[in-house]
Amino acid sequence: MEVRIKILFTSICHTDLGAWEGLNEMQRAYPRILGHEAAGVVESVGEGVEDLKEGDHVVPIFNGECGECTHCESPLTNLCARFRVDPFKSVMAGDGRTRFSVVDRAGERRPVYHFLNTSTFTEFTVLDYACVVKINPVAPLQRMCLLSCGISTGVGAAWNTANVKKGSTVAVFGLGAVGLAVAEGARLRGASEIIGVDINSKKFEKGRETGITKFINPKDCDKPVNEVIMEITNGGVDYSFECAGNVDVLRQAFLSTHDGWGITVILGIHSTPKLLPLHPMELFDGRRIIGSVFGDFKGKSQLPDFVDKYMNGEIKINLDGFITHELPFANINEALQLLSEGKSLRCLLHL
Amino acid sequence: MEVRIKILFTSICHTDLGAWEGLNEMQRAYPRILGHEAAGVVESVGEGVEDLKEGDHVVPIFNGECGECTHCESPLTNLCARFRVDPFKSVMAGDGRTRFSVVDRAGERRPVYHFLNTSTFTEFTVLDYACVVKINPVAPLQRMCLLSCGISTGVGAAWNTANVKKGSTVAVFGLGAVGLAVAEGARLRGASEIIGVDINSKKFEKGRETGITKFINPKDCDKPVNEVIMEITNGGVDYSFECAGNVDVLRQAFLSTHDGWGITVILGIHSTPKLLPLHPMELFDGRRIIGSVFGDFKGKSQLPDFVDKYMNGEIKINLDGFITHELPFANINEALQLLSEGKSLRCLLHL
Ligand SMILES: [Zn+2]
Ligand SMILES: [Zn+2]
Ligand SMILES: [Zn+2]
Ligand SMILES: [Zn+2]
Repeated sequence: MEVRIKILFTSICHTDLGAWEGLNEMQRAYPRILGHEAAGVVESVGEGVEDLKEGDHVVPIFNGECGECTHCESPLTNLCARFRVDPFKSVMAGDGRTRFSVVDRAGERRPVYHFLNTSTFTEFTVLDYACVVKINPVAPLQRMCLLSCGISTGVGAAWNTANVKKGSTVAVFGLGAVGLAVAEGARLRGASEIIGVDINSKKFEKGRETGITKFINPKDCDKPVNEVIMEITNGGVDYSFECAGNVDVLRQAFLSTHDGWGITVILGIHSTPKLLPLHPMELFDGRRIIGSVFGDFKGKSQLPDFVDKYMNGEIKINLDGFITHELPFANINEALQLLSEGKSLRCLLHL
Repeated sequence: MEVRIKILFTSICHTDLGAWEGLNEMQRAYPRILGHEAAGVVESVGEGVEDLKEGDHVVPIFNGECGECTHCESPLTNLCARFRVDPFKSVMAGDGRTRFSVVDRAGERRPVYHFLNTSTFTEFTVLDYACVVKINPVAPLQRMCLLSCGISTGVGAAWNTANVKKGSTVAVFGLGAVGLAVAEGARLRGASEIIGVDINSKKFEKGRETGITKFINPKDCDKPVNEVIMEITNGGVDYSFECAGNVDVLRQAFLSTHDGWGITVILGIHSTPKLLPLHPMELFDGRRIIGSVFGDFKGKSQLPDFVDKYMNGEIKINLDGFITHELPFANINEALQLLSEGKSLRCLLHL
């Protein structure tokens, strides 16, 4: 039930960056191969795999879909019981072993661990069938790579998790690729106002190309951002999205929504032990807060359709705008640096 | 735009008890008239009131509905911009003054403050039109009294806030009148399993009469209640309801729900400054947490229909079961004592 994939393109997401920087000690497994946003071609399939064959164009998904468990059968969740995203998982589900190895200095063969069900910073990788999505072979793999994480996560948060309505107001906190993908998703849904919040004003330029209609740099404000947004929107936005992974930002995002019906979607990875800074009674004002994983997309069921609609023009998403840099795979450290310094949205690495 | 009501029946809710005990210093206003669960007859109406007249049978609602503000016009909330529940409000909206007064020992007339838009522990009270619901005059007022708070809050949390589905599983934490009303609401929706949790085992007897199918007394468990519920339900309940006003219980209620789609509804009044004991990443398991005010009922729009359906047998709710005691109004201190000691669900006071 496994698939070997030749990776043709991969890009770097903040989750890779966090793992690279060793943000969460608990999730370390060394040595391991990072990377989870990629596109490639099936090289071979193992016994039992029926929906994939050599030569298929595919994107890996870190949040798998077995299609058979109670969770996969429920329309309410995209968290597969067996293959959902798991930052602690470093081996294959089948036998609890790895498919990578390396010979150490002493001449002994040692396991190299997997990362997020995927491990794409490599020429070849092995994935469980549940984590491989077959897509339209006509679609350009160097763009489809983005659907593997960032774009699906952001656009899906707007479409599936929040279900942004036409004419509604939106605030996005943190304007990396995921935040801008949220804005893109909200724009495609016809949101009337999309407010972008970031402490790096350079990100505002890129934001203009996606749907963002107003920018706020908290450093330029003499009062809390949520109060600024309350004034601009006459009572708060309908939806806010926290893409910063910071609980103080999360509280501001929460308080930026309209009482009675505001929804805050958490997308950011919160790697500190800090708890939600919310009092239970604050939920009585009718504001809701929800987490979103992979944009609530069921990867194998729904991404192929997303790709088809992108190809036939039904989904007018500007994928090109998200790729700010392209480099050969050998320059991966340069790409990590660009993301770390906030200079790139996505640097596409060619293998 | 005000209505004077002759109160015929009133009962005591935990919110009155909390105010009586002075739980929240910030919300004190002395002297004041407590009480918010009642039923009565309109004695007279002020200028501008068109939907009510002398003799109408009514129930007061602490969470008013003006019918005209943006909130009232939205199907997403029952929190009226002007007359929503407000524990800090102690005067009328119109002129910021009170309609009660008393002559003190020095012979001076002093204001007596209002409570929760209602103040029903009195023979006559004055309410804003938005807080008075006209109901079918055939309905027995001594039962309709319960719709004024406890029953609507509990049943509505199951029907409107959580939208409990047929065949689903439910856990209710805290088996006072509101908790049992949740169970009753879940039973009427056809929930297949309704687990009741309370540290007072005496409450279990009454629970059997409502829909509760299993009881758990945390004091009898050698592991956390959420783990017990996980085992019983093979992965958690679909919905949990926190009616205890305790953040530790709230966390257990949250963790008792099924990952992927579990919903926890907060009904309890949390009068301590303790924050939600949840980590942001815990929301990535697909569990949701929502506050519910007055069961998400829009009082003036929806309660009359509730009453009609109760009368014609469409809503088969056992209101009688909630009234465990009846006393003359003069014995109100005895009634407060009964509730405080957990001996009564509702003690109906006759005026
Ligand atoms: Zn990612
Ligand atoms: Zn599955
Ligand atoms: Zn009450
Ligand atoms: Zn209103």
